[in-house]
Amino acid sequence: MEKTAGKPIRCRAAVCRATGEALVMEEIEVAPPKAYEVRIKILCTSLCHTDVTLWKMPSSPISIFPRIFGHEAVGVVESVGENVTDVKEGETVVPVFLANCEDCRDCKSKKSNMCTSFPFSAAPGMPRDGPGTSRFTDSNGEILHNCLGVSSFSEYTVMDIAYVVKICPEIPVDKACLLSCGVSTGVGAAWKVADVEAGSTVAIFGLGAVGLAVAEGARIRGVSKIIGVDLNPEKFDTGKKFGVTDFVNPKECGDKSVSEVIKEITDGGADYCFECVGLASVMNDAFTSCRDGWGKTIVLGAEMHGAPLSINTYELLRGKSIEGSLFGGIKAKTDIPLLAQSYLNKELQLDEFITHEINFEEINTAFDLLSQGKSLRCIIWMD
Amino acid sequence: MEKTAGKPIRCRAAVCRATGEALVMEEIEVAPPKAYEVRIKILCTSLCHTDVTLWKMPSSPISIFPRIFGHEAVGVVESVGENVTDVKEGETVVPVFLANCEDCRDCKSKKSNMCTSFPFSAAPGMPRDGPGTSRFTDSNGEILHNCLGVSSFSEYTVMDIAYVVKICPEIPVDKACLLSCGVSTGVGAAWKVADVEAGSTVAIFGLGAVGLAVAEGARIRGVSKIIGVDLNPEKFDTGKKFGVTDFVNPKECGDKSVSEVIKEITDGGADYCFECVGLASVMNDAFTSCRDGWGKTIVLGAEMHGAPLSINTYELLRGKSIEGSLFGGIKAKTDIPLLAQSYLNKELQLDEFITHEINFEEINTAFDLLSQGKSLRCIIWMD
Repeated sequence: MEKTAGKPIRCRAAVCRATGEALVMEEIEVAPPKAYEVRIKILCTSLCHTDVTLWKMPSSPISIFPRIFGHEAVGVVESVGENVTDVKEGETVVPVFLANCEDCRDCKSKKSNMCTSFPFSAAPGMPRDGPGTSRFTDSNGEILHNCLGVSSFSEYTVMDIAYVVKICPEIPVDKACLLSCGVSTGVGAAWKVADVEAGSTVAIFGLGAVGLAVAEGARIRGVSKIIGVDLNPEKFDTGKKFGVTDFVNPKECGDKSVSEVIKEITDGGADYCFECVGLASVMNDAFTSCRDGWGKTIVLGAEMHGAPLSINTYELLRGKSIEGSLFGGIKAKTDIPLLAQSYLNKELQLDEFITHEINFEEINTAFDLLSQGKSLRCIIWMD
Repeated sequence: MEKTAGKPIRCRAAVCRATGEALVMEEIEVAPPKAYEVRIKILCTSLCHTDVTLWKMPSSPISIFPRIFGHEAVGVVESVGENVTDVKEGETVVPVFLANCEDCRDCKSKKSNMCTSFPFSAAPGMPRDGPGTSRFTDSNGEILHNCLGVSSFSEYTVMDIAYVVKICPEIPVDKACLLSCGVSTGVGAAWKVADVEAGSTVAIFGLGAVGLAVAEGARIRGVSKIIGVDLNPEKFDTGKKFGVTDFVNPKECGDKSVSEVIKEITDGGADYCFECVGLASVMNDAFTSCRDGWGKTIVLGAEMHGAPLSINTYELLRGKSIEGSLFGGIKAKTDIPLLAQSYLNKELQLDEFITHEINFEEINTAFDLLSQGKSLRCIIWMD
């Protein structure tokens, strides 16, 4: 370690040079961490759907190339910059895309996970240096932009300490990797945003890894029904592992709407509906499927086309609510260690989310698998 | 009392014969109460904006004429039908438009005030007899339809026991009348739906009686700022009586939007926004004016044109929520007596809502005053 600290590191990264182009393995240079920054040796990473969305996004201030994607990972601290006291060399850490400074009004409140010191942005840049800054350069000395403050598709990355979570070394690194984004988002939405109670009914729209993690969170809470809604009938068998009790395929509802079918199954509507697809029309289906009186709809992901959500105000008046959240309401530094402990206590299932494992050089395969709906999580091993 | 029980009563009522037509005082006949029903001698009534909305509504299954409007009142039980044990002759009662059977899943839950035994409907009819039934006939023996299960613009009315709340006789009847709908809705929205905390910031869109009652509820809780939003500048002086600290007139925001002005006043957005106008565009303004992280928008009234609410999903994701409620989440039989006690304890202000008092024959004046925004509540005395 001592040999590299304070110096640039040359290593491999999977670089994306333009919208939707296959990633290319390149030798890059990673600058040493500045004050409040940590340089991390990535052990393994996985592909979250947000990376695919950003990868497909046309050039814009949010989408600048060349860029190093990846924001779900686990690593070991290689070195730290000035003023970093939370972590030290050799410690296992989980990087996250949503800051948790633990010092602002939001971080100090139980009600919010939206750090106001470092507001969420999809635009590249180091949090304290501003938009467009990066610690990566290519072999020609040109800047390589980062992604969501993480950029884990590189053997080494530099992150702000507000985005780095120390984790107990007992948890296997591939399981810890899952807690970095998708699984935490789903479990968090069930536990922290909805706070689902034993005996309640839950409907989940979209059974990808995030939706299944909602099911897993609801299963642990002891809900009475978990209805999975997906166009892919194979998802029901997968869902059963995470407690899904009923399956609704919108293509097979005949002349009924999805919400009519869910209202029949739940005798009036689900107590909680979770939208894990990212489509305004599905958000509306979820809202309509909730029961009057206290039905709550939780929106977990960005609308993929930026469309507004339109809802019937008479339905809203009947005691319904809709709530959005990023990262499932997870406050990274306190909640991710709790999720890790829940796994070690054999409560939270994580192994079942890992459907594929590949080497770093095969990273484009992970994009194919996820785009085709064939994987939940594909672990990408750096070594 | 003994002379009338079990027999029809002839009395005066203000009958509306067609959409938007002035009410006409007629002699009508009020049938005796059937099982689970109560016949009430109305002492005083007041005009809530929902009556004006229904009065202006073109004929439809919800809007059937001739009809007796009025749903905010206080009265004395004249006689009861079979199986009525909650109230007896001579007791003071507050009629309400939203049932509270106290026996269904929703009535037994703390989370809901949407009684499922008698779901809310704006269509005329006695709850147990079905749509179109009534206990009123005119001098020709023709049916006169009722309104929201109450029809208080009559010297006597018959109501289902699920809609009748016994109230302590210590509270002056004109103050109790206010608790029948509008004021309870506003205070309930602040206390029961939003559950506003001391020190939080509140923005209220629309400073009619309901909006001012939200302010009153927030004032009692000790919030730090109450921002009133209204097109009528005179509302600021009125609002100050109920704790409004800041006033925003959308016509005087220059090149800024209302939400930009509110974000400046609150350093990022209000903790709670209340929509008390009934316009989808204002609901959106309220939603936009809430802070990220935990900003909550409460919608209190029906959208007056039936328009859908359209919201930006990226804003929603930043931890915001929107919740609708009828009657401010009030469970009539338990909460209205608590509000009455709060008045008697000199916590809740009620006198300040009464801006006008008239005799029953002058009832059309109440419509003029409210339509022109000149009154908060006009008490209409039956004697």
